[in-house]
Amino acid sequence: MTKPCTIGLDLGGTNIKFGLLDADNRLVYRASLPTEADGGYAHVLGRLAIAVEQIVQESGVPRAEIIGIGLGSPGPMSPETGIVHGAPNLPGWVDVPVRDDLRQSTGMPVALDNDANLYALAEYSVGAGRGCRHLVMLTLGTGIGGGVILNGALHRGHFGNAGEIGHMIVVEDGRPCGCGQRGCLERYASAVSIAERVAEAIHAGRNSALVPFVTQARPISSRDVADAAAAGDGLAQQVWDEACRHLAIACVNIQHLLNVECILLGGGLIGAGAQLLEPVRRHLRERTWRVAKDAPRIELATLGDDAGIIGAAAAARTG
Amino acid sequence: MTKPCTIGLDLGGTNIKFGLLDADNRLVYRASLPTEADGGYAHVLGRLAIAVEQIVQESGVPRAEIIGIGLGSPGPMSPETGIVHGAPNLPGWVDVPVRDDLRQSTGMPVALDNDANLYALAEYSVGAGRGCRHLVMLTLGTGIGGGVILNGALHRGHFGNAGEIGHMIVVEDGRPCGCGQRGCLERYASAVSIAERVAEAIHAGRNSALVPFVTQARPISSRDVADAAAAGDGLAQQVWDEACRHLAIACVNIQHLLNVECILLGGGLIGAGAQLLEPVRRHLRERTWRVAKDAPRIELATLGDDAGIIGAAAAARTG
Repeated sequence: MTKPCTIGLDLGGTNIKFGLLDADNRLVYRASLPTEADGGYAHVLGRLAIAVEQIVQESGVPRAEIIGIGLGSPGPMSPETGIVHGAPNLPGWVDVPVRDDLRQSTGMPVALDNDANLYALAEYSVGAGRGCRHLVMLTLGTGIGGGVILNGALHRGHFGNAGEIGHMIVVEDGRPCGCGQRGCLERYASAVSIAERVAEAIHAGRNSALVPFVTQARPISSRDVADAAAAGDGLAQQVWDEACRHLAIACVNIQHLLNVECILLGGGLIGAGAQLLEPVRRHLRERTWRVAKDAPRIELATLGDDAGIIGAAAAARTG
Repeated sequence: MTKPCTIGLDLGGTNIKFGLLDADNRLVYRASLPTEADGGYAHVLGRLAIAVEQIVQESGVPRAEIIGIGLGSPGPMSPETGIVHGAPNLPGWVDVPVRDDLRQSTGMPVALDNDANLYALAEYSVGAGRGCRHLVMLTLGTGIGGGVILNGALHRGHFGNAGEIGHMIVVEDGRPCGCGQRGCLERYASAVSIAERVAEAIHAGRNSALVPFVTQARPISSRDVADAAAAGDGLAQQVWDEACRHLAIACVNIQHLLNVECILLGGGLIGAGAQLLEPVRRHLRERTWRVAKDAPRIELATLGDDAGIIGAAAAARTG
């Protein structure tokens, strides 16, 4: 009896990360190569085919046991049509039928989906969400993305845009967002916004251990803010806590709408570990109802950089 | 070929409304009888059996074509175990196995669910949500309930409490709610809260056409507020518009999380018709992103008082 394996391709503006997932959900091969995005669509498509060929040549798994490819791409895109409509870091990727083109060049079935959905699928399949039938994952990076797993399957919604959790409104008439709304979660709890809010307060005259960054025109990172907060800096503590509080409010709203078992936090911001997790949990406890014991568990994602590959490979299996 | 029909029982504190839905989703029989809730659990269970017997006797549909019963009950409850844990208007209904008891007394399979879920299922099956694969319904009454239909089926969630949309937080540290949270949607946009907010403002000295209600200790209804707003009363207009604005924010958040095709507004408050619908639509348009054309349609529910019966009967078919 063969054990079907699937290929996961995690396409980024700088690198293509790729690997092979076996039937027991083990990543049995893992590598990466530069995207060379400036080469344009046809060139990057060729790079994806090279990645697939490298897996076939080097993984030691017979080609007959590889049943398909999953491709995670920046969006916007349509998993149903297999078309990427645009990707800011991939010049020339405008309305490109990448799923069908990659199927043609590799001879394997291809499933396409967006990164945040695939991170959620990966954590559901083999990570922190294993065993949960219903879960939501928030990816806290430059922006905030999300994925929704219900009854063990990705929920994409009618227009394909489900899980845009970064644009849930948590502050009425709050900070303006690039999306055109005001008060989006992303404007309070993404890595970029956390750093921005500290810089704004310093420009407005607030004192902080991070003042030298601003006077020397060095960029502040969310990591700097976390470190300063841990060291007792008042401004950093305030901004960090506000981020955690708004994340908790988003979790309360997810809870009441979907009643999931588990909400996972992933992305670069979770490098802060317990410094992020504990205040989010505390604010959730303080804010949600006490009568019904239906609060979701809040956990950190565990797959880190491999989530994109694993999620894509998992999508190849179902899609 | 027989055409299977199902019975819908809509259990309230005052009346049991009941009817028979045919295979083409037509309500072919409809009646009601007093609940006589003071008689306690066994008595009310008997009343439900009487309702079933009345349908069998009077509907003209052969018993063999009636394949099951759906029962909508006030909660909290568990559709999975068939147990109602408590119902404020039904004395003695504490942890009662009503599904199994009713199955035993009638000899028919019984599906149990809560009202708000069944309203959503009814509108999905034969009402304003027909043809939508994904929809959310808000029931705007004394409180605010909700139901979530995804992929054509009720989403109940891990703990069975999905759709508690009235307790999504729309104002951080906002008005305290009976549930223990602050800033719940229900505290701004339910019929009771709308009336309360006007009365509070009048007590605090605001002028309004509704002052005589307060001075004469007459209760203000949400209908009174809607009428005063339509007649140009400033306070009534402000409170009414705030309710619509907070409903729109909840809709934006539902949109980004679930990306449903349609959000339905039901319950007593929709008696106001376009006076409710148009401002909610306008606030949504002004608040959600303009780039992606993925805003859900906002519509009024169409089934009115029959929704409970129809939803229960529809649940009997799937459950």
